[in-house]
Amino acid sequence: MTDPLRLGIAGLGTVGTGVVRIVRQKANLLAARAGRPVQIVAVSARSRDKDRGVSLSDYAWEDDPVALARRDDVDVFVELMGGHEGAAKDATEAAIAAGKDVVTANKALLAHHGHALALAAEDAGRVIRFEAAVAGGIPVVKALTEGLAGNDVTRVMGVMNGTCNYILTRMQSAGLPYAEVFEEANQLGFLEADPTLDVGGIDAGHKLALLAAIAFGVQVDFDAVELEGIEKVTIDDIRQAADMGFRIKLLGVSQMTGRGLEQRMSPCLVPADSPLGQLEGGTNMCVLEGDQVEQIVLRGPGAGMGPTASAVMGDVMDIARGVRIPVFGQPAAGLERATPARAVTPAPYYLRLGLEDKPGALAKVAAVLGEAGVSIDRMRQYGHEDISAPVLIVTHKVTRSALDAALKAMASLDVMAAEPVALRIERV
Amino acid sequence: MTDPLRLGIAGLGTVGTGVVRIVRQKANLLAARAGRPVQIVAVSARSRDKDRGVSLSDYAWEDDPVALARRDDVDVFVELMGGHEGAAKDATEAAIAAGKDVVTANKALLAHHGHALALAAEDAGRVIRFEAAVAGGIPVVKALTEGLAGNDVTRVMGVMNGTCNYILTRMQSAGLPYAEVFEEANQLGFLEADPTLDVGGIDAGHKLALLAAIAFGVQVDFDAVELEGIEKVTIDDIRQAADMGFRIKLLGVSQMTGRGLEQRMSPCLVPADSPLGQLEGGTNMCVLEGDQVEQIVLRGPGAGMGPTASAVMGDVMDIARGVRIPVFGQPAAGLERATPARAVTPAPYYLRLGLEDKPGALAKVAAVLGEAGVSIDRMRQYGHEDISAPVLIVTHKVTRSALDAALKAMASLDVMAAEPVALRIERV
Repeated sequence: MTDPLRLGIAGLGTVGTGVVRIVRQKANLLAARAGRPVQIVAVSARSRDKDRGVSLSDYAWEDDPVALARRDDVDVFVELMGGHEGAAKDATEAAIAAGKDVVTANKALLAHHGHALALAAEDAGRVIRFEAAVAGGIPVVKALTEGLAGNDVTRVMGVMNGTCNYILTRMQSAGLPYAEVFEEANQLGFLEADPTLDVGGIDAGHKLALLAAIAFGVQVDFDAVELEGIEKVTIDDIRQAADMGFRIKLLGVSQMTGRGLEQRMSPCLVPADSPLGQLEGGTNMCVLEGDQVEQIVLRGPGAGMGPTASAVMGDVMDIARGVRIPVFGQPAAGLERATPARAVTPAPYYLRLGLEDKPGALAKVAAVLGEAGVSIDRMRQYGHEDISAPVLIVTHKVTRSALDAALKAMASLDVMAAEPVALRIERV
Repeated sequence: MTDPLRLGIAGLGTVGTGVVRIVRQKANLLAARAGRPVQIVAVSARSRDKDRGVSLSDYAWEDDPVALARRDDVDVFVELMGGHEGAAKDATEAAIAAGKDVVTANKALLAHHGHALALAAEDAGRVIRFEAAVAGGIPVVKALTEGLAGNDVTRVMGVMNGTCNYILTRMQSAGLPYAEVFEEANQLGFLEADPTLDVGGIDAGHKLALLAAIAFGVQVDFDAVELEGIEKVTIDDIRQAADMGFRIKLLGVSQMTGRGLEQRMSPCLVPADSPLGQLEGGTNMCVLEGDQVEQIVLRGPGAGMGPTASAVMGDVMDIARGVRIPVFGQPAAGLERATPARAVTPAPYYLRLGLEDKPGALAKVAAVLGEAGVSIDRMRQYGHEDISAPVLIVTHKVTRSALDAALKAMASLDVMAAEPVALRIERV
């Protein structure tokens, strides 16, 4: 196996350019590690003329990524275009049909079509690898699929959207409201063109769905991820949480329960002194728990040219070295679809309730909670002179369904001034 | 590749028993993930009759691990005996000579003989895998060798001896002196039969040498690791460090410099709010830095039945899946021996100096430091009435050789009441 491994790269944005740089600058190192040369033979991108600070003249150019994917001289199709429909999907399907292996950073594509693509790839004897799709430079897909292959995985968790973590930690450190920090992040270019992908938890949800499929040996099912964004988190929530020794993180949690597979991406409270609680700024963190390994925590940059290109190259090097593992760790043909389960594991919750300044308002709310079986651990109300001051409650452990019943009953009370906010306090 | 992968396990202590349990209890899961059954065919240990809580009756028994290693029906020799000479070495060599792949948890064996064993294995077309030898359940060998294969690694660091980290954090939290916590750890069974392996930094040094070989593409060279144990760290050092915002950790650091390869395992000061500084108790942490990936931090249990067996099984599963990567990430035949370099990267140091209660003592010490080019950032002396109270100094950045010159000159002063202690303040 000393023939060169020949790459066709579709997409020459930040990540694609980073990959080209590594292949050009580290030819000897890569060849020594892979036991064979790693070469780029062809590239494709929207604009041929854009100056990317790297020479492309050694490579064939294809305007059409599908044509790139089908080239006879390409062994591995490296898909760095993004988007879960259109060109990225067409080209990936074409690559598989043409007998190419695929390396992709496209979380959306795999979250939506990963199972079908894996079936097609494995039918054709090909692999799809996607380390760069989850948590940037952190080799978490590898750790989970390979390193923990001797475990029954019990839970995976992750803070996997750097923009959201930046917003939440910046709100806390600067004492600024959400809208202001959101605008700041926008100015800094941290947000996707459609910011809902970030702050709505969609991007992080894609990543969670991929990890859950590997962890629990099921078909990837993004539609079953319970999504809740960070838009409703206020500076007061962050301050109150901090007062009680917590931090608020957009946290993904997946675990298999007796009732089915939980996949949740939502703002949660975690202990301030835990590795997750201590995570600041744009850094990502994944927590993998298994019956044997107990708990592994992985921390690193979730985005950026170098880190994401590093993850892409890890996959390329594995293919160069002859590593061939099923896309989701087990043959896709044998993966079943999990029954989705809402959060069934009981947990304490943090509640923020905006009440009208009416006599007995609190008593009515307390009665509703009690009837639903939600017992109160701690309760606070600041600034009684301010009628808009919310009541803050930490519940004892409760199931999400009991809590939802309470929230539903509350909605029909005549004392609610605002929609209640409920954030789970996750055991980490 | 649907033939079963057949294991011969030598050593049935905690880890070996853990591996037997996993293979027995997870046969279906392992087969689904590997695409083939994983079976144990034969075992070997010192005592055949000991009750290990797991049935061995399905497996052939060999009194001699060398005979086990040579069995025709063994594909992978799993070496869990320990010790860098004698039976473990003989059996590993025999396994390679007989054409077996090897999975081992034996850091001492590989730190001392890893290069020769890798040469022999690769000559025979075999692999040796050793995830369990470094940082227990943390898949750090995999992350470094495979996940970061597209990087020029710039530095690796690690807190990789749980016993030392337990002792240091317990000293701090309970305010107890070293000797007392050492005895406590001994009572709890945390220490090796020869405790120098732990507290002298040898065990952690073995692990660092293995990571350095992979990271920098050189022959593993344990003899070149600068070793300094934790025996001289006092409760006062820990308190003073804490006062200044630091924690003391037995930290391994390796980096390639213009003058050669640095490999140091020594008590260092790290910022209290860094991931390394926040690491408490027996947990391990590895920090991997590359020119592309920036910094990856991996945290997890460094020992114990489940975590270590998890690492062994990760390697077994890789072999079952057909993963074949050179022992140290590049063919051993091409690895050169690095020139060892003492810490050449300048850093600030923490100094504890015991001075006689003589007029001008401090002035003499300060003069010596100044002559050697060591400038003082901060200095403290507590309890001037107590003549034994040490002088505590934090230097500006200085090379180790300049510092050593100063310490040497100090030794010939007539004002030193105790041997000076110098701890590096590592940038993390």
